[in-house]
Amino acid sequence: MDKKIPVAILGATGSVGQKFIELLKDHPWFEIAALCASERSAGKPYHEAANWFQASELPKHIGEMIVQPCEPSVPGRIVFSGLDSSVAGEIEQAMAKAGKIVVSNSKNHRMHDDVPLLVPEINADHLALLKKQAFGDGMIVTNPNCSTIGLVLALKPLVDAFGVREVSVVTMQALSGAGYPGVASLDIIDNAVPYIGGEEDKIETEPLKIFGDLINDHVEPAVMNISASCNRIAVVDGHMECVSVRLGRQASAKEIIEAWEDYRAEPQEMGLPTAPGRPVHYHREEHYPQPRKHRMLDKGMAVSIGRLRECSILEWKFTLLSHNTIRGAAGGALLNAELMVEMGLV
Amino acid sequence: MDKKIPVAILGATGSVGQKFIELLKDHPWFEIAALCASERSAGKPYHEAANWFQASELPKHIGEMIVQPCEPSVPGRIVFSGLDSSVAGEIEQAMAKAGKIVVSNSKNHRMHDDVPLLVPEINADHLALLKKQAFGDGMIVTNPNCSTIGLVLALKPLVDAFGVREVSVVTMQALSGAGYPGVASLDIIDNAVPYIGGEEDKIETEPLKIFGDLINDHVEPAVMNISASCNRIAVVDGHMECVSVRLGRQASAKEIIEAWEDYRAEPQEMGLPTAPGRPVHYHREEHYPQPRKHRMLDKGMAVSIGRLRECSILEWKFTLLSHNTIRGAAGGALLNAELMVEMGLV
Amino acid sequence: MDKKIPVAILGATGSVGQKFIELLKDHPWFEIAALCASERSAGKPYHEAANWFQASELPKHIGEMIVQPCEPSVPGRIVFSGLDSSVAGEIEQAMAKAGKIVVSNSKNHRMHDDVPLLVPEINADHLALLKKQAFGDGMIVTNPNCSTIGLVLALKPLVDAFGVREVSVVTMQALSGAGYPGVASLDIIDNAVPYIGGEEDKIETEPLKIFGDLINDHVEPAVMNISASCNRIAVVDGHMECVSVRLGRQASAKEIIEAWEDYRAEPQEMGLPTAPGRPVHYHREEHYPQPRKHRMLDKGMAVSIGRLRECSILEWKFTLLSHNTIRGAAGGALLNAELMVEMGLV
Amino acid sequence: MDKKIPVAILGATGSVGQKFIELLKDHPWFEIAALCASERSAGKPYHEAANWFQASELPKHIGEMIVQPCEPSVPGRIVFSGLDSSVAGEIEQAMAKAGKIVVSNSKNHRMHDDVPLLVPEINADHLALLKKQAFGDGMIVTNPNCSTIGLVLALKPLVDAFGVREVSVVTMQALSGAGYPGVASLDIIDNAVPYIGGEEDKIETEPLKIFGDLINDHVEPAVMNISASCNRIAVVDGHMECVSVRLGRQASAKEIIEAWEDYRAEPQEMGLPTAPGRPVHYHREEHYPQPRKHRMLDKGMAVSIGRLRECSILEWKFTLLSHNTIRGAAGGALLNAELMVEMGLV
Repeated sequence: MDKKIPVAILGATGSVGQKFIELLKDHPWFEIAALCASERSAGKPYHEAANWFQASELPKHIGEMIVQPCEPSVPGRIVFSGLDSSVAGEIEQAMAKAGKIVVSNSKNHRMHDDVPLLVPEINADHLALLKKQAFGDGMIVTNPNCSTIGLVLALKPLVDAFGVREVSVVTMQALSGAGYPGVASLDIIDNAVPYIGGEEDKIETEPLKIFGDLINDHVEPAVMNISASCNRIAVVDGHMECVSVRLGRQASAKEIIEAWEDYRAEPQEMGLPTAPGRPVHYHREEHYPQPRKHRMLDKGMAVSIGRLRECSILEWKFTLLSHNTIRGAAGGALLNAELMVEMGLV
Repeated sequence: MDKKIPVAILGATGSVGQKFIELLKDHPWFEIAALCASERSAGKPYHEAANWFQASELPKHIGEMIVQPCEPSVPGRIVFSGLDSSVAGEIEQAMAKAGKIVVSNSKNHRMHDDVPLLVPEINADHLALLKKQAFGDGMIVTNPNCSTIGLVLALKPLVDAFGVREVSVVTMQALSGAGYPGVASLDIIDNAVPYIGGEEDKIETEPLKIFGDLINDHVEPAVMNISASCNRIAVVDGHMECVSVRLGRQASAKEIIEAWEDYRAEPQEMGLPTAPGRPVHYHREEHYPQPRKHRMLDKGMAVSIGRLRECSILEWKFTLLSHNTIRGAAGGALLNAELMVEMGLV
Repeated sequence: MDKKIPVAILGATGSVGQKFIELLKDHPWFEIAALCASERSAGKPYHEAANWFQASELPKHIGEMIVQPCEPSVPGRIVFSGLDSSVAGEIEQAMAKAGKIVVSNSKNHRMHDDVPLLVPEINADHLALLKKQAFGDGMIVTNPNCSTIGLVLALKPLVDAFGVREVSVVTMQALSGAGYPGVASLDIIDNAVPYIGGEEDKIETEPLKIFGDLINDHVEPAVMNISASCNRIAVVDGHMECVSVRLGRQASAKEIIEAWEDYRAEPQEMGLPTAPGRPVHYHREEHYPQPRKHRMLDKGMAVSIGRLRECSILEWKFTLLSHNTIRGAAGGALLNAELMVEMGLV
Repeated sequence: MDKKIPVAILGATGSVGQKFIELLKDHPWFEIAALCASERSAGKPYHEAANWFQASELPKHIGEMIVQPCEPSVPGRIVFSGLDSSVAGEIEQAMAKAGKIVVSNSKNHRMHDDVPLLVPEINADHLALLKKQAFGDGMIVTNPNCSTIGLVLALKPLVDAFGVREVSVVTMQALSGAGYPGVASLDIIDNAVPYIGGEEDKIETEPLKIFGDLINDHVEPAVMNISASCNRIAVVDGHMECVSVRLGRQASAKEIIEAWEDYRAEPQEMGLPTAPGRPVHYHREEHYPQPRKHRMLDKGMAVSIGRLRECSILEWKFTLLSHNTIRGAAGGALLNAELMVEMGLV
């Protein structure tokens, strides 16, 4: 690539926006051309507008960029959106109409018929839906919810090898999933909260579209029965999920672990810069995976799985972990954009 | 009661032992006659031998009691045992042979054929097993594991009203369940651990004995399929559990909630001092129950339930919470002893 | 007392307001006649208007009280104010003008010339300032900031016995001091914050008024040099403070500890219901005091001190702990009101 | 450097030992030739012997290295010691006698007359003490305690520019400073501990040696009055310290900040691989520095300072933060070794 592709970040001051900056600041293909946020922030240098709460240092030249309003005239061929869902719908539509490639982490367009809900390792072929979009040069692509992504990456090798018919999942989700300021400290120190608004519905429905078959430029949802219970716990980053599954055919533990460990897909074959070396790591230690130890595996883009054992109600149970703001948000969107570049869509 | 019944506490310096002291220090029926612990502690004043880490103050006169070794000659008609399972087996046997009423929180004798695994609200009739014990005046009674008790109290009204055939449970368990020093802070701050040794087996098997039928002085285990996944999270006290159930017959949400709210049993009718006013509290707020807010309901002896909703795999799912060192350990044992007094066994 | 005195709570839905409810719900002298809050909450049942986040249960009859706006017409002779300082100034003035006895925890009037900054153990005589207030039957009395109160209670016995000339204090303050939602969990899990807006100024100035001499109905500030550094840490309740002092005359460790342990004042002598049995507890264990273990000593109204040792720069150093929302807020205000009742001012 | 220098790690399974591995695994000058630990671990593959609790992945080839006993025959010219002080004394002596260059993080030899207590930015000249050591080719060099290092790096520019006469410091120290398992979670969740055994003495005495003058191959301790209070809080990594100082001559805030920001020393000039670009970062945001946000600045080797303001008792106060297991332990030792290589001592 001779010259880097200019990109804009929408919602740049927020939690996901900050993660986009972290992942894009040294990116080999993309360079940040614009940081966009609400009217309240627009016009200020970024370091003033944002309460930077990442553990890495904010690069000085980015801190001094002037925040722009979220308008279609911003520079950048690709627009990464970390906007709040209360405003993402309209702004993303306007951007697409203006010819931008909108790569969004917001929930607004995920379930639209003509919008790919894209996980490059799973359904790269769903990009064919873009043909149906009526934005001219512009387009909208989305990535799944932060609690969905770990689950579908763990299920994909099982879907391919054995089929998956039923999934029961209980999550223990990290605080960064609620954005900033998000969860009040008084609600979570020495405590846990057994409810996250809208989350269970997302885990129960998004996988059906992701695993759906593309038939005549239409995604036919997969048939899979998913039941979810979502909890918030005192962890900064990294969603943990206890999963039970009923497969489509008999399998041994050995076969299942091999399916996970052998799993490679387009992003690995293409060598996309943000792709994990291995999408799934299986840990044999009985007390693994753990958020603080494994969330950063493969740059935060891999899913860690452990504790595969038989389930007396469904057939198998295991625990998974994935980084909710990297693989589950900014990193996932970035991988989508990289796939689109590699496939000649940008 | 004219005169209080003298009791001894085994393992008095440990986590459960300290809870026994807290609950017994102002008890209307019992008075602490002896504090027993390992040879290392014996001979020292209690306040020196123990690292008292309860939030309440250690009463001065108890702090000054001299710790005794765990020998059958200790004073006290009832012996509460919070011993580590590595030593509980032998010591409790010796105590029973010496004529003591051993009310144990340890796992060692729980599954023995002639030992009641007692939950006063559920299976008071199992005390009939005592006839089969060969200890003369002595006897051994046990209470279930700290993660089992919340589950069986939540299930009991459903068992009675509708039957329960399948149970899938994922726990988020508190740190105090691991004793002291227990879980290292480096293992749990900004982290969670998806494994607790031996715990899943206990939740999957103990309820079958507790719900078992007493037939000819023998407990015939209930038929119920339970699958458990146990996790440790950064909460001091209070085990939370996400439960899904398949019932024996159709029921509405209204019927289920009524079954919980109407649930009363022997301990409530007898007015036992440590009995909760209501064994089960159902919370209608969608983000309840929570450990820090609800663990102390009804003196830490009640189970809090919330979020009843349909489950697409089994039939219903809900979240429960119970205090693991009160209802799940010392308080549960104490209630067992109170029941035995009231039934004339002491 | 034949009949309980009706009281109103201003800011009843907030953090301090909830603590007022907890402490007043079974009070022997007072009964809650009105719960007042902002227009947004007014008209709703309290359990709907407030997000009750205390560990104790909200009594049903209080949960069903209809929240009223903060208007002078509310019932109640005494008005406890837990209002935010952005509105407390005007509302408290209006209440006093309407003849209410305003017992406030807000900072707005603390440093006013004619307003007692009252700590019943220290400066009950400052109530003479009330003569100068021009509210007719009404009056305003305040209690100090949550980080000041522990410090002045620890210093008072030293002031009396030896004099105190210099004080260096570094605080580690609890999350509840910031109200609700207050500190974001992402800012405090695995973290600490070395700044609390306005706090250092309060600790450096309020003690001068509290220890001031009443001369001709005027408080002449004490001469004492205080330097403070304030930090927020991941503790729910209980402010810890590392203090170094230079005394007015030489003293031994033994004398200092005796001064603390012998310390009793009006509230103890009068037997006020909320008064701690002993205002100061000295702990000899080298790793005490600790927030979770000692904040509830004497119903959360006592100060715990430990680690007295020589300081090579000033003369002595020690660590103190006090409960910031009980002794440092609602409980402190309540004790003020009890003192006023006992002194015939109500 | 044509060929990497082989090094051994003593205490390789422990907390500091693991950090040594993390920092050495891709080091440009050194390569790990031996992992040594207690007899209990010796003979096992490292991944079995150690409970690896770092957030980074353990490289496979290191996990498969066989742990050796801590004997002088181990390969490696340099020996990094993260041994527990109960055994470090003897083992390190034996290693030095066998001709090894012992670069130790243990406290045992720090205050010995002929052992440099080395901070490369401050007292590189103290390496002259090595002449007095009687180990032949072998030698022992130490780095200071994890709470001392941040303090001396922050003071050094002030010592040079203005002189420092008095220092009052209150620490809030991270859990990793206590090793593993170290602090029990029940002692620190929703809690803080106002005591760390031996720590205050170390902060009060080590700086005097570090800032001491080298006169005739002897270090004459600096004259500086330091008073310390040490606390443990619920932070994983990163010690925070509230510091007040009296300088040797008047200085303005601007001058002090410039002294910090301009501070560079030998490690920066030599470009040592582990040296921070800038030893001290001054933050202008009033709520900085914070452990989670700033501990990793400059690879965890820099000290962050903020909140410089006047102190009414001494003259200036500020807050500092440094990474206790990197700059304060393994990274500090590594920088010592790099300095020695660059100075031709290896």
